[in-house]
Amino acid sequence: AQSSVTIYGVVDTGFANIDQGDDAAGQSINRNGLESGMNSASRIGFKGIEDLGNGLKAEFVLENGISTDSGDGGAGFSRLAFVGLNGGFGKVRLGRQENQMKEMLGKIDTFGAAGIANAHDFIGGYDGLPQRQPNMVVWQSQNYGGFNGSLGYIFGEANDDNSANSGWGARLGYGNGPLNVQFAYQKQDETDLITDTNLVDPAGVSGDTKTALLGATYDFGAFKLHGLYGEKKYDAGLVATEDVKVRSGLIGVSVPFGASKIRAEYINNSNKDIDDADSDVWALSYTYAMSKRTTLYATYVNVSNDDGSTLGLGGGDDAAASGGETVSGFGIGINHKF
Amino acid sequence: AQSSVTIYGVVDTGFANIDQGDDAAGQSINRNGLESGMNSASRIGFKGIEDLGNGLKAEFVLENGISTDSGDGGAGFSRLAFVGLNGGFGKVRLGRQENQMKEMLGKIDTFGAAGIANAHDFIGGYDGLPQRQPNMVVWQSQNYGGFNGSLGYIFGEANDDNSANSGWGARLGYGNGPLNVQFAYQKQDETDLITDTNLVDPAGVSGDTKTALLGATYDFGAFKLHGLYGEKKYDAGLVATEDVKVRSGLIGVSVPFGASKIRAEYINNSNKDIDDADSDVWALSYTYAMSKRTTLYATYVNVSNDDGSTLGLGGGDDAAASGGETVSGFGIGINHKF
Amino acid sequence: AQSSVTIYGVVDTGFANIDQGDDAAGQSINRNGLESGMNSASRIGFKGIEDLGNGLKAEFVLENGISTDSGDGGAGFSRLAFVGLNGGFGKVRLGRQENQMKEMLGKIDTFGAAGIANAHDFIGGYDGLPQRQPNMVVWQSQNYGGFNGSLGYIFGEANDDNSANSGWGARLGYGNGPLNVQFAYQKQDETDLITDTNLVDPAGVSGDTKTALLGATYDFGAFKLHGLYGEKKYDAGLVATEDVKVRSGLIGVSVPFGASKIRAEYINNSNKDIDDADSDVWALSYTYAMSKRTTLYATYVNVSNDDGSTLGLGGGDDAAASGGETVSGFGIGINHKF
Repeated sequence: AQSSVTIYGVVDTGFANIDQGDDAAGQSINRNGLESGMNSASRIGFKGIEDLGNGLKAEFVLENGISTDSGDGGAGFSRLAFVGLNGGFGKVRLGRQENQMKEMLGKIDTFGAAGIANAHDFIGGYDGLPQRQPNMVVWQSQNYGGFNGSLGYIFGEANDDNSANSGWGARLGYGNGPLNVQFAYQKQDETDLITDTNLVDPAGVSGDTKTALLGATYDFGAFKLHGLYGEKKYDAGLVATEDVKVRSGLIGVSVPFGASKIRAEYINNSNKDIDDADSDVWALSYTYAMSKRTTLYATYVNVSNDDGSTLGLGGGDDAAASGGETVSGFGIGINHKF
Repeated sequence: AQSSVTIYGVVDTGFANIDQGDDAAGQSINRNGLESGMNSASRIGFKGIEDLGNGLKAEFVLENGISTDSGDGGAGFSRLAFVGLNGGFGKVRLGRQENQMKEMLGKIDTFGAAGIANAHDFIGGYDGLPQRQPNMVVWQSQNYGGFNGSLGYIFGEANDDNSANSGWGARLGYGNGPLNVQFAYQKQDETDLITDTNLVDPAGVSGDTKTALLGATYDFGAFKLHGLYGEKKYDAGLVATEDVKVRSGLIGVSVPFGASKIRAEYINNSNKDIDDADSDVWALSYTYAMSKRTTLYATYVNVSNDDGSTLGLGGGDDAAASGGETVSGFGIGINHKF
Repeated sequence: AQSSVTIYGVVDTGFANIDQGDDAAGQSINRNGLESGMNSASRIGFKGIEDLGNGLKAEFVLENGISTDSGDGGAGFSRLAFVGLNGGFGKVRLGRQENQMKEMLGKIDTFGAAGIANAHDFIGGYDGLPQRQPNMVVWQSQNYGGFNGSLGYIFGEANDDNSANSGWGARLGYGNGPLNVQFAYQKQDETDLITDTNLVDPAGVSGDTKTALLGATYDFGAFKLHGLYGEKKYDAGLVATEDVKVRSGLIGVSVPFGASKIRAEYINNSNKDIDDADSDVWALSYTYAMSKRTTLYATYVNVSNDDGSTLGLGGGDDAAASGGETVSGFGIGINHKF
């Protein structure tokens, strides 16, 4: 009776040590315990696709994030909730979706834009980059000789103001044999979106952020190289009284051997407008695939901040560090897909 | 492994313009964006039926409402959550269910009591009519020569007071060939239920509302006519210091042609006890069925209020208009059933 | 497409009379209505198991509690959320799970540690016993000639303090033919866990609770006897300014006849350190299995308190009685498994 729905998901739980350095009072913040989603986010989803004939298909995805250490989760579908039509024109999707930066990073980041070392949490400094957004319209092209791309528009849905909280993004990619090149751009109005308490004006500012990302991977067979260069510009009032530009570089390598894989990545954020506000991230991970669906992992991430930077694990929002602190996370666990 | 459970649902998302007229300060309230459930509510459900032998069956339904534009949703099952027994006696169900007014309107309303033009949101003025209620016991009869009906009781579950917040309803219907006639009545104690801030006393009043609905549809083949007459009485203290009666009339037409259907409806609410507090609603919709499961739609709804009426889209609760304002909603989107 | 996931659950709804005696002001607290989970908790779950070869299996369970009278439920999975590996070493599971006391009581309690007469809500007085806990690591042994056991550790996850809120438990059991013997122990740091407003210091106390449970069942065929002796010790500051020990005894009998079963249970809590703070619980239940999946039930539970005891239905947390009051619950309903 289930032909039109597929249930899928990830249960990823492991032992973790999370060291957030010292707080403002010089007290250390270090905890041991179980954490969820350190290799890829724990989730449960429902999806389906219907053949409408004439090359047309309707599809939907509903996907909720869950914390498989505690059982906590969001009401509804906190990750993905969209319906779409697929055809010769590509795919058009309406609802909560990945933005173009996330699409791009999923194809470039050494960690596939997933887990505790997800580059999304670090690139651009401050809040990192948003990954999924509500009220999006996305068009994804078909593949043309290796080229493909997507466009997205995020409705801000403010009364009498179509620009507040709105955004748009574009991605262009080329994949052929061992080479994969990706470019993404997003312009986002941040009127009510910025909630990071580290920021100057957490709400009510009408400035934009503009992010450009260019990256590539090359698979040499014995290993795969990952590289990215990005710029995120914050309008005056968002993170400082002046405009701020952060340049980010990423370099990584994945080395598969048998069922094992070693991944290493280094990210540098260089703040071009504020002194002493840079940050560095490095991550190292070993994974062992017990099967296609079940993987054991051990991952270490280290974030070191200049005195003017508060980058933490999981992005600035939920785990900002105190300025100048070094933050690290170590996780060892099991990732099971269903 | 799923033989005892069926997953089903609706993902309905589209572009919308919602114009709520002016607020009290004369500022217009108009937004563009994506909305969920404009043709029928987005939802996900789990249901099953077990044959117990001797003509008896056990059944359950668990159904949650979701917003497929944002991914938001309620925790638990905000629409339906019941278990029941079916047999020669009909069906007895315990839990959160549709009340008898909703059952009736689902069979009479031009829009099937669904989506942005759902007559439930408008009939009776003020809050409209409740659609589903918790702690219900419902008995649904079998069909006897075209006649069928149902009875429902809503436990108020107040301490030492069996009447506070309790209600009961009855539906009687007759369907035979092209003719369908439905009658429903509900008496509802509103002690703690009325939360509409437009109402005089939003909580703590022990008055009742009493609603009677009589309607019919007739299918001429080329088109189908829909008509309804209703009265909702509010005890003194609920919406005014005196008793208030609102008379509602509905007339509609559905015209199918091929995979397309045009639906049009007009509703008038006439307040018999308060001057200048009437409202009118008209709605027009075009739908195109790409398949049995996937439908494209474009729907427009317009609500015009007298100065003493604040009827909005989605009922008075979540989108009350300012008195005298005209409210409208336009949606164009895709409705996909799974 | 569902081979890796099984959906399962329970929908249990019935009529209830809940009498909580008088409140502090002498006002009676008695309500009629529908309640959920009176025979066993209403829930919906997703689970799967993957054969990894070499005798190894990966498994996961995600299970959410729901209230099938109202449709309310928790976000996420409020009952179980774990991933595990099974092999010759037994089972190792990470996440939200049953603790060892719950495992033990599930095998000893006349009511299977389920429903309105669940011994977990009563044993130890005060809060009863916790049933499931987040951030747990559990090892379950294989069966060795009737002997089996489990060990659990609960991470407290406090910053710079591995003991706050942490706990550990052990269970050892022996089952052979009609005899089943179970022992369980749990030591739990209660720093931030105790939220019962009846307790002296609901938060911030770093005391422990220590619970030991020894029980057995013997199946004579025509009936089954259930017996348990337990001690729960509360460190000073948790429930009184001094250390408090509560001794609990349970005796029960289950009598099956055809599709019917009668269950009766008596629990006594004797407070060894505070005078006039004992409580008695007795429960009587009749169930009729319409099928393996669908059961009708009628259950009555009565809790009588000394003046210094406030034990209520569902444990002290959500339904504490006033001191000296007698609390009772009667439910008649349907329990349907899917």
